[in-house]
Amino acid sequence: MGRKVAIVGIGHSKFGVRNDVNIAELAWESIKQAFESSNLEPKDIQYISVSNVGGWSGEPLPAVVVSEYAGLTGKPLHRVEAACASGSSAVFNAYNAVSSGQADIAMAIGVEKMNESPTPTVVEFIGRAGNYFWEFENFGLTFPGYYALYATAYMSKYGASEEDLCQVAIKNHYYASMNPKAQFQRKIDMPTCMNSRYIAWPLKLFDSSPITDGSAAVILASEDVAKKITDSPVWIHSIGAASGSANLSKRNDFTGLEAAQLAAKMAYKKAGLETENTAKYFDAAEVHDCFTIAEIMAYEDLGFVKRGEGYKLAKEGQTYIGGLIPVNLSGGLKAKGHPIGATGESMVVELTKQLLNKADKGRQATIKNGRAISHNVGGTGHYAYVTILGLDKPKD
Amino acid sequence: MGRKVAIVGIGHSKFGVRNDVNIAELAWESIKQAFESSNLEPKDIQYISVSNVGGWSGEPLPAVVVSEYAGLTGKPLHRVEAACASGSSAVFNAYNAVSSGQADIAMAIGVEKMNESPTPTVVEFIGRAGNYFWEFENFGLTFPGYYALYATAYMSKYGASEEDLCQVAIKNHYYASMNPKAQFQRKIDMPTCMNSRYIAWPLKLFDSSPITDGSAAVILASEDVAKKITDSPVWIHSIGAASGSANLSKRNDFTGLEAAQLAAKMAYKKAGLETENTAKYFDAAEVHDCFTIAEIMAYEDLGFVKRGEGYKLAKEGQTYIGGLIPVNLSGGLKAKGHPIGATGESMVVELTKQLLNKADKGRQATIKNGRAISHNVGGTGHYAYVTILGLDKPKD
Repeated sequence: MGRKVAIVGIGHSKFGVRNDVNIAELAWESIKQAFESSNLEPKDIQYISVSNVGGWSGEPLPAVVVSEYAGLTGKPLHRVEAACASGSSAVFNAYNAVSSGQADIAMAIGVEKMNESPTPTVVEFIGRAGNYFWEFENFGLTFPGYYALYATAYMSKYGASEEDLCQVAIKNHYYASMNPKAQFQRKIDMPTCMNSRYIAWPLKLFDSSPITDGSAAVILASEDVAKKITDSPVWIHSIGAASGSANLSKRNDFTGLEAAQLAAKMAYKKAGLETENTAKYFDAAEVHDCFTIAEIMAYEDLGFVKRGEGYKLAKEGQTYIGGLIPVNLSGGLKAKGHPIGATGESMVVELTKQLLNKADKGRQATIKNGRAISHNVGGTGHYAYVTILGLDKPKD
Repeated sequence: MGRKVAIVGIGHSKFGVRNDVNIAELAWESIKQAFESSNLEPKDIQYISVSNVGGWSGEPLPAVVVSEYAGLTGKPLHRVEAACASGSSAVFNAYNAVSSGQADIAMAIGVEKMNESPTPTVVEFIGRAGNYFWEFENFGLTFPGYYALYATAYMSKYGASEEDLCQVAIKNHYYASMNPKAQFQRKIDMPTCMNSRYIAWPLKLFDSSPITDGSAAVILASEDVAKKITDSPVWIHSIGAASGSANLSKRNDFTGLEAAQLAAKMAYKKAGLETENTAKYFDAAEVHDCFTIAEIMAYEDLGFVKRGEGYKLAKEGQTYIGGLIPVNLSGGLKAKGHPIGATGESMVVELTKQLLNKADKGRQATIKNGRAISHNVGGTGHYAYVTILGLDKPKD
């Protein structure tokens, strides 16, 4: 199964409304840190995947512009898009490039600058991310509307309440308050979430992730090369990937995302892990909480608990540090922010820090197993990627 | 260097103005043929890279829509963009996925439907494909304008004439006349080319590739799996990739594309070939003739001849069948057409057919060496990919 691959460099920009920088400068904030953290230079990079959904500005070749600004001109390059899971897709392709022997050192760079969007507006553009001609044009479905379908189905089947959803938001704002890179650094309480206005019932403003500018970067290396770069590599144990139907009307079930379930099974299988009762394997998880319901479905799609029991984790505070499994100690998409092309790399950066005990005070998980998992979804389960990281070298 | 990878299935749609189909139907024409040619089904595919530049329509997740229509929902999926080299990038990533062991069977699907473009127009959109804010907005450079800079520099330095450029167009229209998949199936003569109107001096209408709708697909498999699928695999010997500066003002030279030179060197090195005087290795080449000058530069960037001698190949008819090296027997981008996201796969499909002696009558190369090469450029050398194929299994 190819060569073993380690994370040897990471970088992460401040997330938020970043009108102070252009897209290349925003990407550079992460690239620079990734180089500094690995003592590598542009000349060392042999493969680059830039994840960026784009469409917000007139720049049609963002990867080239980002690459030139970072001194990476000349290197093998492409841009990858898997909607809001683009960042994980970039990591996946960089991982394959190193694993295959095509490159010894590869880089995944995620960047998105959403706040400069002209027409269509950001929300309209994101709303198209299903089957545009059918569901958006004909039915007027928006992106919050898509997830609201899942929320109502889930609440109706399992009895979860709007308060249960708000627990996810409260937790993620709590941890974001200790993350200087997060877009929001203010804690919220239950009345703030419950009294916020409806975006698409039952989802309210505080159930929803924001529009974010940001970047994140990850440098991967083969085993032999990683040894020379760092004494503390974090290994990629496996990556699972899957897709879902464009039309939501073709989905069988609205209480979980089938693509995420498939991706999780693939990742577990490749890592040699069981697919149920999986919380015990991990010290921390970063999951795709574009809306609070999405985090609750993620608990189940990843097998942390049985179907229909995810909301109880939120209700009982089991996903705080000290609980069954700490989830989104970065603040998650909900409060750290969600620059869609960079979110996948951001998750990997966060989990690498967690595993190396380098997270900010108050939001560092206890590292016992030395394993962590990310769950990154594109669209409403149109794409899904699950990545398992570990301090121990993967088995042969 | 990873597992050996073979091409086991190919498909190619009719290129042209395809208002008769939507993007998913257009992609399916190729996907269906690829399945039929390999006796594979959607369930066999373990990795999919869809190359599509997009921006012409409101569909923001084209890969998902294409995948659903083709019965591929559930599979690991992403979209890749490397401007007009997107197709080769999809092949490169699929190759890495198989080589690394991540997948046994992978698919690269290229599709572009350019004729449905709303505002901005196709030509404006493509014109942005450099450094948009600097060169397009400030200087008004268009895509033909970019290549015209190269044409004037080349002609001035080496003494090539407009007639020499037209020789490329005449050859490519000649071969396209025998390719039922080509957009244009009419031969042209020197007066037709020379009397056509200037688009950006010295480039005329007949020096330029058209706006095209089309698709192409390639299925790759590992050595063990390929053996079971086919008795006549075509092997990928190597893929070289490189990028160029976004700003053309930062280029050192305008008589060749540095990214293409870098990609060629990488491909030759990985395949164990010399980098000069390389025409002798290959029975056929497909090169990126988005404008006639681009094909002439390709002869040199690929090392078929020395710098400044490419135009002589065109002048002397050395790139017809029977000459030094037959180039663009498909008709090339110039006459076969250039659906930008599908062109890379189209080149691989064509060369696979050539190597297997399955090209149409009158445009089949003589297969002696059993090797072929493709050269695919994105933007004006912003991206470049060079792929070497062979009937012989790559060495260990």
